[in-house]
Amino acid sequence: MTHHPVTISRFLFLAVAFALAVPASAQGRSVVNLNADWDYLEVAAASPEAARAADGWEAVSLPHSWNVWDTTDLEPGYRRDASWYRKTLTLTPQAGRRTLLSFEGAAMTADVYVNGERAGGHVGGYVGFDVDITDHLEDGDNEVLVRVSNAYDRDLIPSQKADYFLFGGLTRDVWLKDVPATYVERAHVLTPEVSAARAALAVRVALGGDGARGGHALRARLVDPAGRVVQTAEAAVPAGTRDSVTVDFEPVANPELWSTREPNLYRVEVELLADGAVADAVTEPLGFRWFEFREGGAFYLNGERLLLRGTHRHEDHAGYASAIPNEIHRRDMAMMKEVGANFVRLGHYPQDPVVYQAADSLGLLIWDELPWNRGGQGGPAWMANTERLLREQIAQNRNHPSVILWSLGNEIYWLPDFPGGDDPERLNATLQHLHEVAHELDPSRLTAIRKYYDGADIVDVFSPSIWAGWYSGVYTAYEAALRDAQERYPRLLHMEFGGSSHVGRHTETPIDGQGLVDPDQWSEAVNQVEVTNIAKNGDWSESYIVDLFDWSLRVSETLPDFTGNAQWAFKDFGTPLRPENDLPYVNQKGLVTRDGTPKDAYYVFKSVWTDPDAGDDPMCWIESHTWTERSGPAGEPLPVAVYCNTDAARLSLDGRALGTVERDPSAFPAAGLTWDVPFAVGSNVLVAEGLEAGEVVTADTLVVTYHDTPAGTPDEIVLTTEPLANGNLLVVATMRDADGRRVLDYEDDVYFSLDGAGELLVGWGTPTRSQRVAFANGRAAIELAPGDGPAVVSALNQDFKGSYLTIPAPTGLTERR
Amino acid sequence: MTHHPVTISRFLFLAVAFALAVPASAQGRSVVNLNADWDYLEVAAASPEAARAADGWEAVSLPHSWNVWDTTDLEPGYRRDASWYRKTLTLTPQAGRRTLLSFEGAAMTADVYVNGERAGGHVGGYVGFDVDITDHLEDGDNEVLVRVSNAYDRDLIPSQKADYFLFGGLTRDVWLKDVPATYVERAHVLTPEVSAARAALAVRVALGGDGARGGHALRARLVDPAGRVVQTAEAAVPAGTRDSVTVDFEPVANPELWSTREPNLYRVEVELLADGAVADAVTEPLGFRWFEFREGGAFYLNGERLLLRGTHRHEDHAGYASAIPNEIHRRDMAMMKEVGANFVRLGHYPQDPVVYQAADSLGLLIWDELPWNRGGQGGPAWMANTERLLREQIAQNRNHPSVILWSLGNEIYWLPDFPGGDDPERLNATLQHLHEVAHELDPSRLTAIRKYYDGADIVDVFSPSIWAGWYSGVYTAYEAALRDAQERYPRLLHMEFGGSSHVGRHTETPIDGQGLVDPDQWSEAVNQVEVTNIAKNGDWSESYIVDLFDWSLRVSETLPDFTGNAQWAFKDFGTPLRPENDLPYVNQKGLVTRDGTPKDAYYVFKSVWTDPDAGDDPMCWIESHTWTERSGPAGEPLPVAVYCNTDAARLSLDGRALGTVERDPSAFPAAGLTWDVPFAVGSNVLVAEGLEAGEVVTADTLVVTYHDTPAGTPDEIVLTTEPLANGNLLVVATMRDADGRRVLDYEDDVYFSLDGAGELLVGWGTPTRSQRVAFANGRAAIELAPGDGPAVVSALNQDFKGSYLTIPAPTGLTERR
Repeated sequence: MTHHPVTISRFLFLAVAFALAVPASAQGRSVVNLNADWDYLEVAAASPEAARAADGWEAVSLPHSWNVWDTTDLEPGYRRDASWYRKTLTLTPQAGRRTLLSFEGAAMTADVYVNGERAGGHVGGYVGFDVDITDHLEDGDNEVLVRVSNAYDRDLIPSQKADYFLFGGLTRDVWLKDVPATYVERAHVLTPEVSAARAALAVRVALGGDGARGGHALRARLVDPAGRVVQTAEAAVPAGTRDSVTVDFEPVANPELWSTREPNLYRVEVELLADGAVADAVTEPLGFRWFEFREGGAFYLNGERLLLRGTHRHEDHAGYASAIPNEIHRRDMAMMKEVGANFVRLGHYPQDPVVYQAADSLGLLIWDELPWNRGGQGGPAWMANTERLLREQIAQNRNHPSVILWSLGNEIYWLPDFPGGDDPERLNATLQHLHEVAHELDPSRLTAIRKYYDGADIVDVFSPSIWAGWYSGVYTAYEAALRDAQERYPRLLHMEFGGSSHVGRHTETPIDGQGLVDPDQWSEAVNQVEVTNIAKNGDWSESYIVDLFDWSLRVSETLPDFTGNAQWAFKDFGTPLRPENDLPYVNQKGLVTRDGTPKDAYYVFKSVWTDPDAGDDPMCWIESHTWTERSGPAGEPLPVAVYCNTDAARLSLDGRALGTVERDPSAFPAAGLTWDVPFAVGSNVLVAEGLEAGEVVTADTLVVTYHDTPAGTPDEIVLTTEPLANGNLLVVATMRDADGRRVLDYEDDVYFSLDGAGELLVGWGTPTRSQRVAFANGRAAIELAPGDGPAVVSALNQDFKGSYLTIPAPTGLTERR
Repeated sequence: MTHHPVTISRFLFLAVAFALAVPASAQGRSVVNLNADWDYLEVAAASPEAARAADGWEAVSLPHSWNVWDTTDLEPGYRRDASWYRKTLTLTPQAGRRTLLSFEGAAMTADVYVNGERAGGHVGGYVGFDVDITDHLEDGDNEVLVRVSNAYDRDLIPSQKADYFLFGGLTRDVWLKDVPATYVERAHVLTPEVSAARAALAVRVALGGDGARGGHALRARLVDPAGRVVQTAEAAVPAGTRDSVTVDFEPVANPELWSTREPNLYRVEVELLADGAVADAVTEPLGFRWFEFREGGAFYLNGERLLLRGTHRHEDHAGYASAIPNEIHRRDMAMMKEVGANFVRLGHYPQDPVVYQAADSLGLLIWDELPWNRGGQGGPAWMANTERLLREQIAQNRNHPSVILWSLGNEIYWLPDFPGGDDPERLNATLQHLHEVAHELDPSRLTAIRKYYDGADIVDVFSPSIWAGWYSGVYTAYEAALRDAQERYPRLLHMEFGGSSHVGRHTETPIDGQGLVDPDQWSEAVNQVEVTNIAKNGDWSESYIVDLFDWSLRVSETLPDFTGNAQWAFKDFGTPLRPENDLPYVNQKGLVTRDGTPKDAYYVFKSVWTDPDAGDDPMCWIESHTWTERSGPAGEPLPVAVYCNTDAARLSLDGRALGTVERDPSAFPAAGLTWDVPFAVGSNVLVAEGLEAGEVVTADTLVVTYHDTPAGTPDEIVLTTEPLANGNLLVVATMRDADGRRVLDYEDDVYFSLDGAGELLVGWGTPTRSQRVAFANGRAAIELAPGDGPAVVSALNQDFKGSYLTIPAPTGLTERR
């Protein structure tokens, strides 16, 4: 999709900077980004008058959430209340035009007031909506006030029991649209039949505003991936039409198919003509592709089997909450593509429009999920909201070729918010209805649900809960669990596997869970007090999770007729339900940390999911770059695993070759790329080289300090600092024994605090920006933004009475935080 | 001590309300309380100019600390920095007079500026000091600015490793004194020889200001406990005298002795005469008593053996930090007396003047401690501070008959703040010097120290660390540990025993530690990771701590030649070192909670330490008033213990007598007052009656709900509310099984939060005012101060995804919080 700059002629720009990017597509419509120059009031005033009179207004820009810093801090709870946003629109309304405020999302409910009058609003946080403010505008300055609330509301999905934060705010872009009195409200691209030889194509257009009068017509152009107009179609618009006019194209012969490897994107440009002139225009994406979940069998895209290699995304990022800049939305999706994923479950709610655009462009298939997440079934108000939100979600996201599944929910029966809300009969009736709504609106997609067994037959595609080696059982039982599920569910797609890992925690003796938990326990416990499981009893080491993923991917890649699965979740994210995690209030199951930094597991996936032979970059990664101190019995070599996507790899120790190994995808661990390394006491340099056809195409290096005796008992937390590239200091706490040796098995929590100048970076939900964090192999750290004077950083915990490090005032540091 | 109102003639009261209580004692001196009408600035400005220019000044009254709310909250660390206090003094200085600002304490360092000029200051938080501001005063308004800092300072005791908060602020009363140019700076009452027949008496007076000129003389009066002047003595004051003039009394025949049962208080009124007129006057307390720690033997007061029944006090109270109103200081001391204590260790620093006055009046012996607490030995700056603070402490507190010991520190070697600071040779040299300083200044007291074994022979009285059944070993080893210590230390006084208890936690199967910990491990571990101990592995139940105290008191009361001991500590208090306690950042070893509410252990002590035959109120207390749900196997009775101080007690169940039992102090538990109670399923009414000479003199009642099957696994947190007398609501979280039964062994943490109107009371460090708290027998609670609208309270933890209670807007509630 290309953006055509448009001259905006009808607004008088008196005070507000409207000269922003204008991603509109025709002269009859102008679309101006309104993210800049808002005022914000963190007071739940009940009326515009009360809001106006309140103290505390401050300048903000969008996207914005008031829950950026109060969620992954150490205080329970976060602000669940209403706030106000205010913007002055300075413009001169013109007769015969309409002005729309277009919100990509307001979490969770919004009431929009213009010049004190309510112009509209929305209930539900994850889909966009337009408010027609034409009738409330005056010439000159117009006051827009938006009351946004994420207060507790049982009638609105998702449930309060959801395992993520229900961030509040104007968390996505806001736009001002200037359109004619009758305009294009929606254009749905229909491809009822697609094959390699031929694709049927039509566009169904809904008109907003006054509806069609005499003289209106529609014209649509099909533009191919190279930007060439390959077909133009027209349709008359009978006077009085409002809802839908269909513009039929001629069938497209030999379309350039959209696939995950070649995401060929067409676009459809739709113009509303008034008396022959272009009155309004919109552009929609289009990809020609078909897919199939074969009964009892695999997934096929465009007739070819495609193993769905998936992950999950939450709209959550360190320092932004859900109010994420578009470049980070896109970077997230690009990172998933880079790791080799071809499928993303947008769990557990529809996400920012740029996420779908990125998926279209990158070639990522999407499971788009209605946020019916836990809480069971509510009453009539709940039902009305839920069905409406499904309809809005499908209307909004259906043109994206990336989307293949409308998920109707997740764990919907669990922890009912209403008495009797987990009654399967009522749940099934609702699920059946939503299933029918989805099919009626969009016959081209399938429906899905995860972990609601009573409704497994209602939806098209089903995912049970299998957390082999985490919430239940052992990871070595994964294949048996999948085979069992394949038998039970004809269209199985396994959503959610993996586990938590704490950055930098490694062990010489990784468990597989045998002897620790019940290996035959496959289903996730309702709460973790009822069955023993690794989530509760494991060490949350990267070593363990690397093994779990390595094993699980080997199973996924080779299981016959397997549709695929999705690792939970690509990035660490915040949750109110996990106060006691190694990173408080952070779900640490990510392949990357909450700020997008790869963890060990990231490289495991990349080594399995990417392939130089298919054009991916070659890679080798020695496990692990945060495992730089090891110890073992004298004279006994230690295993080193190297995760490569190359045909073969070789390893050297201090320049001595340790041998070349062919990559064997059926071998565990590391596809056989493991070496027994005779470390010498002291410093050891490891170099791994990846080979394609006998040539070195990539390399990785790691320096390991080795001891042949274990450290003693923990004796003292020693604090040191390391300069960071951003001008801050990393304050590192190391647990030492009485001889000063780092105690590698120490993993209790440490609590940091600061006296004096500067600021500790806390509440980010990342390993080095949390005020409490668990030690990993005897090491923990926090980032200090120095101030104008000396600082004293302290680190203590329940057993160690505090270590103090005095840090002198900085000299010449720049660009902090 | 009575207070004589005095007319204040020389100040012009223009703006500041000086018309306050004036506790002076002679016409020549006026003393005005200055606690009211201060401004406070929470900015660490470096100079008076910068402070004056800063924003953020707010009105406060004293005592004041800036650490009231940031210490026992959930955030690590607390404000350790400087703040400013400002007051306007409106007065007209008169020639020949001096004006002193008198601070009872400024934590930890203070710089006092008058009209922009530095007039004086002080380093050290727990003793008082005067600043002579005469030369800086102007006629009319005078600006007093005080910079107070509790910033990290290695050179100032106590160490940062201390197990309590180093609260900052003007935490005690401030006074304005108007005195003549030459005035009485100190008057030390000397009683070099006291017996039942005769007491020697003198007063040594130090003159402040200009020193004696010709015409000065001293007159002193001895006033007996009934308020009668029984003797007057005079002394000439040679011109030029500054430091000390001694006024000798005639020996007092048959003095009314001061003792813990009869704290007969004399007073000495000292007048400075100038040319025959009273120029200045002070009054000091006096108690005639002598005491002895016999080598290898017991403690004797006035020649009679007195078993020291002791406890400890920190200057800390919920909602006040260390800035405690005098009435709460006094109430604390009165509660200790009520429980039967006769001894209080003011660990680990000198306390507010009213604490000593209360001890004098109530009959409580005092161990007064230099705050050399952990951190080892520092350099010259540290040494100068430490010695000076000992000298100031002795000078300030030595007239109190309650004080018997100058403790030179606690655990002084531990966790050195300076390299080599734990070298015993250096430590011993310092300890020896401080010991000599104490004896030189005050030959009438002994020195003491706790838990510094290398210096056990240096001080007069020594306490090792014995935490039998808590930090090491089992409580049943207490007697053996004491006997061992009696052999090692000729003047043993055992400071600190006990353990933590979480209010409301009880068990049918209390442990004694056998099989759980090493029963032969007597000494406290340096950190709790090195030895297994009950502190770490126990359940922190009240059941356990009741047993521990019951057993320990039986040992203490009966061990031959035992001097006594002191339970640690009377009241729960805040500490930065215990983030993970059941009440975060609260040392829960108190007999009462941080707001002074008795816990179970309180009644155990009261039953042992008080005696109706000695005039104490009779009491019976059924264990426990927070143990109202119990369960046990069907048909098996459950034991009920009743703690009484009466000769005998009887128990009835639903009106049926279960028998009368004679109290036997040698029996464990409860001095034999236990019954096997055949509870019936459902509600059971227990009535205990205490008997003296066969007559019922006291009674206690408890209603117990009983089940003859255990509850199932935890299923749901159920929230309910109970109205409180203060107009607030107690929100109660109960862990229920699937059948709605309370799960009595559930003791994980719960995290409370609030959406909507009102305020959760958090950060108080009490069981119902902490945002995180551990369940006790499946129950936890938090107090809600309702607001003007509905509120949603949520409770969740790592395993339970949240329960929500919507509380409607209150109607007609009054007097909240």
